[in-house]
Formats: sequence, C-alpha cells, structure tokens
Amino acid sequence: MALLEDLNWRHATKAYDINKKVSDEDIARIVEAARLAPSSSGLQPFRVAVISDQAVKEKLAKGAFNPECMRECSHVLVFAAWDEYTEERIDTIYDKTTDERDLPRGRFSSYTDMIKQLYAGQTAEEHFTHAAKQAYIAFGLALAQAAELRIDSTPAEGFDQAVVDDVLALREHGLRSVLVLYVGYRDAERDWLAPMKKVRNDTEDFVLLY
Amino acid sequence: MALLEDLNWRHATKAYDINKKVSDEDIARIVEAARLAPSSSGLQPFRVAVISDQAVKEKLAKGAFNPECMRECSHVLVFAAWDEYTEERIDTIYDKTTDERDLPRGRFSSYTDMIKQLYAGQTAEEHFTHAAKQAYIAFGLALAQAAELRIDSTPAEGFDQAVVDDVLALREHGLRSVLVLYVGYRDAERDWLAPMKKVRNDTEDFVLLY
Repeated sequence: MALLEDLNWRHATKAYDINKKVSDEDIARIVEAARLAPSSSGLQPFRVAVISDQAVKEKLAKGAFNPECMRECSHVLVFAAWDEYTEERIDTIYDKTTDERDLPRGRFSSYTDMIKQLYAGQTAEEHFTHAAKQAYIAFGLALAQAAELRIDSTPAEGFDQAVVDDVLALREHGLRSVLVLYVGYRDAERDWLAPMKKVRNDTEDFVLLY
Repeated sequence: MALLEDLNWRHATKAYDINKKVSDEDIARIVEAARLAPSSSGLQPFRVAVISDQAVKEKLAKGAFNPECMRECSHVLVFAAWDEYTEERIDTIYDKTTDERDLPRGRFSSYTDMIKQLYAGQTAEEHFTHAAKQAYIAFGLALAQAAELRIDSTPAEGFDQAVVDDVLALREHGLRSVLVLYVGYRDAERDWLAPMKKVRNDTEDFVLLY
C-alpha cells in the first residue's frame, strides 16, 4: 500500500520554504523514477532539466503562472520532449538497446522500419504532441517518488513555454518544454491547500465495469 | 527506494498466463492509484474501464495490436478521457470540491471562469488531447501500483480506438479511449522480454543541469 499512502499524502504545494533545500541524492532519486518510466516503443523521447541556480529560476519566473513557487522551491524540474521523431533518434535508442542486450544491431529493424514510416507521415507538431504525452507518464512517477521521500512538489502544466524554452536553450537540444515540477519543502503557514481535503471522483463514478 | 525497485522490476509483459487471475482487491488498488492522480486544474477528465469478461475481451481483441495479451491477461484496463470540456463538467467537479471542503459553492469561480473561457476558445479535439494527457499521468501510477504488488502489466498506446470506443460504448459516457493497460501474471515461457535487460538513456544524457 506504499504508493497509495504516498499519493494520499501529497498535494499540489502552494508555497515553499526558500531556506529548505532538497539533497542531491533525493533529486537523483526523483529523476531516476522519471528515467525508468515506460514510453511508446521505448523511445524515451523526453529529458528532465534540473534547475537549482537561483538566477536561472528568476529568469524562469517570468514565464511562470506561480512565480513565487518558481523562486522559492528548492529545485525546478522541467520535463521537455523531443521536438520531432527522426530516423537518427530512433536508431540511436535501438542501437543502444541491442548493444546492451548483446543482440545484433538491426535485430528490431522490422519494428523500427514500421515506426519510422508511421512518423514520416506526421508533422513535427504531431511528433511533439506524442512525445509530450510520454513525458506525462514520467512526470507522474517523479512526483510519486518525491512523495515517497516526503518531499513536497507542485505539478504545473500552465506556463509560458516560449520563455522556458528560451531560458534553458531547450531548442538547441532538440527539445521543447512540456511540464514543470516544483520540488522542495512546504511553507506550512502559506501553503493554503495543505490542510484541505483531497477531492477526487468517487470510485463508483471513476470506474466502468465490463 | 520502494518505487525505484518496483519500476526496475516491471517490464512490458509480452505473454500472460490465462489461468492466473488478479484478485478484485488488487485491481481495486491499481485503479485507486489512477484515481488519486493529479490532473490539470483538478478536473480529473478521465475514467478507467475495467474489463474482466472474456467475451468483451474477445471483441476488444479485434482492435488490439497484441490480441493475445488482450485475450490472455487477467484484466484489461482502458483509460478513457473526456471527449470535451464543458461548463457543466467543470462545475460538477468544483461543486463537489467545495462541498467536500465545507466551502461555499463558487468559492473558486474566478478560477473556473478563467478555465471555462480558455476551453471555450478551443475545439473539442483540443480538449480531448489535453484530457488524454492527464490520463497518461494516472496510467503511469497504475502500472507502478501493479508493480508494487508484483503484478505484471503491459502499457499499450497502439490500438484501434474506434473498436475500443464502440465495444465499451465509451462515447455514450462522453469518453474516448486513450490507453490500454493489460494486467495479469506473465507466462514466463512465452514472455520473451522478461529476461532481457531494461534499457534506458544514461542518466548523464537524460538530465540537463542548470
């Protein structure tokens, strides 16, 4: 029941104690949960930017809908997805896969040929939307890992992507920002959501049985 | 480190033992992890269909890219997202939220007015894409919960959505299928991926530091 306890414990923290920092080891664990996430065809088309530098956070705050969280949290994690699928990117990950499994390169070529053909028929915007969805899986696992460590976090989907992409120079890495996760320790006095009941759809409304 | 152990344990199971069934209690725990997932503005714009009926699975298999998994797994979980955002749907969840928190209805009206205006400027297809992304967060948490229970699962994004929507009559619920999670216990002899090394991007390639 550990995960359910962790998920019940967490909430979208609304204010952070700027003086409390998360350890490098704990940040590494949170990032590791994201790294281990499954993804479509195993392509892992996303990366995580970890921001601890206060000057960078100040620049990012200009694109944040909750700039205080951006400034006051311990670390900002920006989940960024590939701006497009390319044959080279697909080959790179499959070559790594076969190499690590002691299989001949090209072992999965009938599959990779199929997905290359699929993506060739789509726009870069369609690629990005698909890659971004994969980042959401990893995002959920990262915030679950933070909760397991009793580290507060705030998932944020609303922000000025152009500002974040620019400040972090994500386009130069072939990436575009998708999601932001603020990580740190709550300021209990200002975190108005902390004492409030978590509200979810009732199970009988949430589930359809067949 | 529980979650990291669970994520390292799991893999996308390629064959199930049709004779081993997951208990109702464990299915409920997996669904509960999805129910507790965070979502944009707390709207929870998705539901989980749980299919245990073999005749329904047979019908769904016609739309599956891996029909054997569909037929042989213990339970199929279909994650389905709202087909659109409506003022009524937004009000319903916010009325529930204020009721459960003993707050006056309309307490968050400045916020809900803003998101209603935002969504009014978008197409139903844009709504669905956004709602679907929220389901990805819950999907990741559900498969992590299965792994914690040492229950096998297979995340599947590729399937014929029209077939699944039709067989489950999802459109009548205002829903469209997004993701499928096969759940059960592996058939070790036929699950070719089970013994293979999990391959992920190296941490130094996965993380960007600022």
